[in-house]
Amino acid sequence: MFVEIITVGDELLIGQVVDTNSAWMGKALNNVGFEVIRVTSVRDREDEITGAVDSAMKRADVVLMTGGLGPTKDDITKHTLCKYFGTELVFSEEVFENIKRILANRITLNPLNQAQALVPKDCTVINNKVGTASVSWFEKDGKILVSMPGVPQEMKFNMTEEVIPRLCARFEMKAIVHKTYSVKNYPESALAIALTDWENNLPESIKLAYLPKSGIVRLRLTGRGDNEEEIRAVVLAEGTKLYDILGENILDENDSPLEEIIGEMLKDKNLTFATAESCTGGNIAAKITSVPGCSAYFKGSIVAYANEVKHELLKVSNETLEKFGAVSEEVVKEMVIGAMNALKTDCAVAVSGVAGPDGGTEEKPVGTVWIAAAHGKTILTSKQVVDFGRDLNVERATNNALLLLQKLLK
Amino acid sequence: MFVEIITVGDELLIGQVVDTNSAWMGKALNNVGFEVIRVTSVRDREDEITGAVDSAMKRADVVLMTGGLGPTKDDITKHTLCKYFGTELVFSEEVFENIKRILANRITLNPLNQAQALVPKDCTVINNKVGTASVSWFEKDGKILVSMPGVPQEMKFNMTEEVIPRLCARFEMKAIVHKTYSVKNYPESALAIALTDWENNLPESIKLAYLPKSGIVRLRLTGRGDNEEEIRAVVLAEGTKLYDILGENILDENDSPLEEIIGEMLKDKNLTFATAESCTGGNIAAKITSVPGCSAYFKGSIVAYANEVKHELLKVSNETLEKFGAVSEEVVKEMVIGAMNALKTDCAVAVSGVAGPDGGTEEKPVGTVWIAAAHGKTILTSKQVVDFGRDLNVERATNNALLLLQKLLK
Repeated sequence: MFVEIITVGDELLIGQVVDTNSAWMGKALNNVGFEVIRVTSVRDREDEITGAVDSAMKRADVVLMTGGLGPTKDDITKHTLCKYFGTELVFSEEVFENIKRILANRITLNPLNQAQALVPKDCTVINNKVGTASVSWFEKDGKILVSMPGVPQEMKFNMTEEVIPRLCARFEMKAIVHKTYSVKNYPESALAIALTDWENNLPESIKLAYLPKSGIVRLRLTGRGDNEEEIRAVVLAEGTKLYDILGENILDENDSPLEEIIGEMLKDKNLTFATAESCTGGNIAAKITSVPGCSAYFKGSIVAYANEVKHELLKVSNETLEKFGAVSEEVVKEMVIGAMNALKTDCAVAVSGVAGPDGGTEEKPVGTVWIAAAHGKTILTSKQVVDFGRDLNVERATNNALLLLQKLLK
Repeated sequence: MFVEIITVGDELLIGQVVDTNSAWMGKALNNVGFEVIRVTSVRDREDEITGAVDSAMKRADVVLMTGGLGPTKDDITKHTLCKYFGTELVFSEEVFENIKRILANRITLNPLNQAQALVPKDCTVINNKVGTASVSWFEKDGKILVSMPGVPQEMKFNMTEEVIPRLCARFEMKAIVHKTYSVKNYPESALAIALTDWENNLPESIKLAYLPKSGIVRLRLTGRGDNEEEIRAVVLAEGTKLYDILGENILDENDSPLEEIIGEMLKDKNLTFATAESCTGGNIAAKITSVPGCSAYFKGSIVAYANEVKHELLKVSNETLEKFGAVSEEVVKEMVIGAMNALKTDCAVAVSGVAGPDGGTEEKPVGTVWIAAAHGKTILTSKQVVDFGRDLNVERATNNALLLLQKLLK
């Protein structure tokens, strides 16, 4: 079954908001076997919305829309869809009750909120349990269009609780199996060379994609067919061949983020963990703590942006700081030891670097980052040298620190 | 001038990668007066790419594409565009030299890298100084299509250095002026009510949008016309009226992120700053350090995920922890004082909460977060109560901590 997604809102087109809805929806739909064939973002203009809706309805079986359902003037999706489907807005007592419930204890009900109780007449209205804009489910010529609020948490709730279950009940779908192998130590093209024979001999039913990101290439195998178990077996057989070729360079086969892989390793080995961060500024800690349940292994961090904090809280000696500079192998080694001592953990990572855009020198240009990972008395270090811009330098340093820890703990 | 953006890649449609390119491009194009009217994401399939390209070329003056230029089999944008524009791939010695330069000291050159030196014959080839996939600039019937690599930093570099300057040289554009006012303390609909009269009296040349995000509503005024100074004057006059209505609730008028606003305040007042974080796990520090030059005011953080770290490094008394629990006003007050003492700063924020999904109790359900901001002996606290899911709870706590500090320093 083919799905198209349309996200509506001027803010998407002028780039003030990144459309994260469509990726989330794509993932959720894919998991249950729907194929998203196109995502379109359009402005809050009637003709542009109608144009996008009309061509999507021709290509796809299901069109899912988000956005343009807010209480303010610039939100026109509801009116536009009424025109497109030849219906009108009517007041829904049920939706109004829900709006009152949602807004209770938050703000005083106002006429704009009341207008959100106007819903298209000829459609199935799904009350939005977590927001004031209701979901409209239209059907026409065997095709389905669902309009949802653009607020991500409201969209996610309604997709999960209402839209996906209803779509699954409605269509009979081909089975789909994804398996994603995360590979380290290979740039994309070198990996493709290493896998040439394997790739050329992949069964017809399997599709392969290379997804490179910050030092890791994810290989995604997708199988489609009538029998899920058969497809899974075919996909897994290809995965076994991948292990024969790539061995320990395969980091993970569940498309888990690095912070989850690390978390599982720490839990399995019953180890506690801390970070000492300079240029990453807490980013490694934030990543580690994005995993629910991380309190089982993560105790905390010292973000030592100023040198005096490196000295006072992490006990990096002033001599080392002066002799080698804050961005040096010697300093990250003392930082990582200092983190384990101060936070009383079994292992730690430490990072110090020049994130940029300023602060570079000839000897240590912007992009230079030293990383250390330690488990007890064993310390590994690595150096990062290329400048990809401040944000990406930090992101790469974060990933490389976790990769170094993974190498150490393996 | 109308622009459409097409982003290519299976990974976007199945949601393994969020398309951040189009938002970045939309913002950059908008700043120089181009209007992005549509963004389309399609899979790595010839017919789907061709379909999207063909209709975009009909609607827009300029079509900008990213993605599908990698060295591997699944990348087919270059071949597809050759077919569409009726041309063929030829070997470019100049592009090959660039590829060799880029890959020097990184990996051994392989046949797939060499194939990246094949470029469309009838187009302007722009050598990509930061990557191996070159940029192709096609022209047909007075319209322009530019195909760029999908790797964000490569796209950004080529947009900034090559594509935007060339587009600006090529077209004469209407002037455009944006002004974005960030408003706190108002939910979207309440704000719309407060602004009804003002909004109804906006001049024709001005467009208004409401952009709510984590407790702040950004009001974006966009003016278009022939004379930039005249438009700016009209926009600013409306801004002045906004101040009359909203007063101190206007946080900022430059669409600056909160971390930049805070950074400017701290610099202006010559104050140093630190954070003590439990459930935000370093996220506030990471946000603060995303601003270049933050070392002028930011000294560091203690991420105290474990209670023993709250006690040992932040000197939160065990009695307070036991009596009130880690998620309490009393504890964040001791944390914020502990942060100022341990990191020797003038001010600090502290956060402790139940991010979820687990760990909630009847008294302190998931979503409960206590926040403190301190400047010397003055301490403000606030409490966050609604559960929006782990990631969003952390994001909101981060924002609310910075808003509390802003209130304190104002």
